[in-house]
Amino acid sequence: MSERRNWTRKRLVEAILAGDRRALARAITLVENGDPLAYEVVSDVYPKTGHAFAVGLTGPPGVGKSTLVSQLIRLVRAEEQTVGVISVDPSSPFTQGALLGDRIRLTDHFLDPEVFIRSMGTRGHLGGLAETTLQTLLVLDAAGKDVVFLETVGTGQSEVGVLSIADTVVLALMPGSGDSIQALKAGIMEIPDVIAINKLDHPMAETMLNEVRQVLALGPHEGWRPPIVLTEAMRGEGVETLWEKIKEHRAWLEADGELDARRRRNLASEVFQVASSRARRHIERAVQGDAELQRLLDEVQARRLDPLTAVREILQKVFHVGDADGSDTP
Amino acid sequence: MSERRNWTRKRLVEAILAGDRRALARAITLVENGDPLAYEVVSDVYPKTGHAFAVGLTGPPGVGKSTLVSQLIRLVRAEEQTVGVISVDPSSPFTQGALLGDRIRLTDHFLDPEVFIRSMGTRGHLGGLAETTLQTLLVLDAAGKDVVFLETVGTGQSEVGVLSIADTVVLALMPGSGDSIQALKAGIMEIPDVIAINKLDHPMAETMLNEVRQVLALGPHEGWRPPIVLTEAMRGEGVETLWEKIKEHRAWLEADGELDARRRRNLASEVFQVASSRARRHIERAVQGDAELQRLLDEVQARRLDPLTAVREILQKVFHVGDADGSDTP
Repeated sequence: MSERRNWTRKRLVEAILAGDRRALARAITLVENGDPLAYEVVSDVYPKTGHAFAVGLTGPPGVGKSTLVSQLIRLVRAEEQTVGVISVDPSSPFTQGALLGDRIRLTDHFLDPEVFIRSMGTRGHLGGLAETTLQTLLVLDAAGKDVVFLETVGTGQSEVGVLSIADTVVLALMPGSGDSIQALKAGIMEIPDVIAINKLDHPMAETMLNEVRQVLALGPHEGWRPPIVLTEAMRGEGVETLWEKIKEHRAWLEADGELDARRRRNLASEVFQVASSRARRHIERAVQGDAELQRLLDEVQARRLDPLTAVREILQKVFHVGDADGSDTP
Repeated sequence: MSERRNWTRKRLVEAILAGDRRALARAITLVENGDPLAYEVVSDVYPKTGHAFAVGLTGPPGVGKSTLVSQLIRLVRAEEQTVGVISVDPSSPFTQGALLGDRIRLTDHFLDPEVFIRSMGTRGHLGGLAETTLQTLLVLDAAGKDVVFLETVGTGQSEVGVLSIADTVVLALMPGSGDSIQALKAGIMEIPDVIAINKLDHPMAETMLNEVRQVLALGPHEGWRPPIVLTEAMRGEGVETLWEKIKEHRAWLEADGELDARRRRNLASEVFQVASSRARRHIERAVQGDAELQRLLDEVQARRLDPLTAVREILQKVFHVGDADGSDTP
């Protein structure tokens, strides 16, 4: 019965601000479903946010991210801080088992009332994944969580987009992560704030460490220099050092006034990202339900109308803008 | 002087359709600059497109993609087919040298009048990279190129987005590409049509081959089964087999009527992608030049206005849409 109690906007807001777990669970479900009530609730609690330290953790699949998060939670809890976790699960077509196995590490903390863990798929978000994770982070923040881990698989910039709201970004690699090293080197993957090389028992761990060092040596020589930590997440080795480095980054951000600046940039970038996803979704829906716009696509496919003219006509019809790249030629 | 001759729309269109190299170079520069003339020219030549076989080649940086393309060009030319290459260069902040070194392989073909190679950076495209590569492909297609290679670095789905216009997608890996294998396994990287494992002399090449086989065995068991080819691009080994497999995929697409269906899907997806980028750019420009919208961002950053309300107000003001996710609640 209590699960079904009628959550009004006011009650939900009050319960979230009081840190009520069921209210949190309910609000996040509403966020995931794109429910209008979620929007109202986040809007109400927003002025109470800004307390949580948002730590993003990314890296290729299989590197042990969930295990690292699980170990980090232990350390954060030992400091008597409360924790939220948003774990973004790639919706794999055929290997959910393997990923679930990894995710199970997090269940160690399911009984701790001061740890709130939410796993979400990468597909089926009405307003896009960036919007869902942003709203969820804000709810956890408003509920008073001291640290929120945002864990997401990342092999390129699109996945890492989810992390643009994080204060500190940790990249987890392992021996064999040659592609990620190359991507860092080529500048197509952004340099994170802290790097963890997991599976330190692996004979190639030292080689990987040296490769990462070489890549970082090519980068800028002022400001924060990303530290590299060797870990063995399964046994918790090196995780204390990792947590120290994360906190050092936080302290550096705060000492420099950089935290405010970074959050300002992050929020502006989130707003653009969410607005763009919404605009895209609006276009897709408009074309789906409109015979005239469908006909445009048919004309493109028959090579009678070129794609850019179709784009212009669609933007004209959907958003009533003359030339949607804004470059109105005189 | 001739370089500066006045290219009118009509002259440029005629010269492109005649396969004139300077006209091609000029048109692609116009495309890159977002010049209105480029738009008109592509619009005019579009009905003459659809002949070129568009082969996408992606893979992590350093895997030898340019060398593979260079070797493939040799084979295509031996068949007396003409070739276009669009080589997307990640704009690296600090290792351009290494990437240029790779790119140099392509210069082997610079003197062949039937090979047209264009390298483009990943940044600074007015309408987005997808739009630039699409328009460039259409120009090369209209100029009568039989095969167009679209080479782009790929470690995730965003980079591979450029390839959504390709008929056949080749993924190049190398021993050590553990992250890519994991990404394929987890379903966050799409299964390509053909896989090349480059650097076959490497002691781990066989191991990589087996890993890829295992990943593919998990996939769907009907339709096209992606073949795996071991290559050593520097010496041209295995490249003939690779080209055979690419042609087999093409033949399979054609025999099944799948080529038309795939191109229809690709074109529709390109139209949405380009429309979305343009909408995004429109939003960014609107906010930049508008004090009221700037003030919205300031309010968000001061935690007085929540991000989603800001998004709604921006979309309302920029596109005059009530609720831009289209889910107008009654």
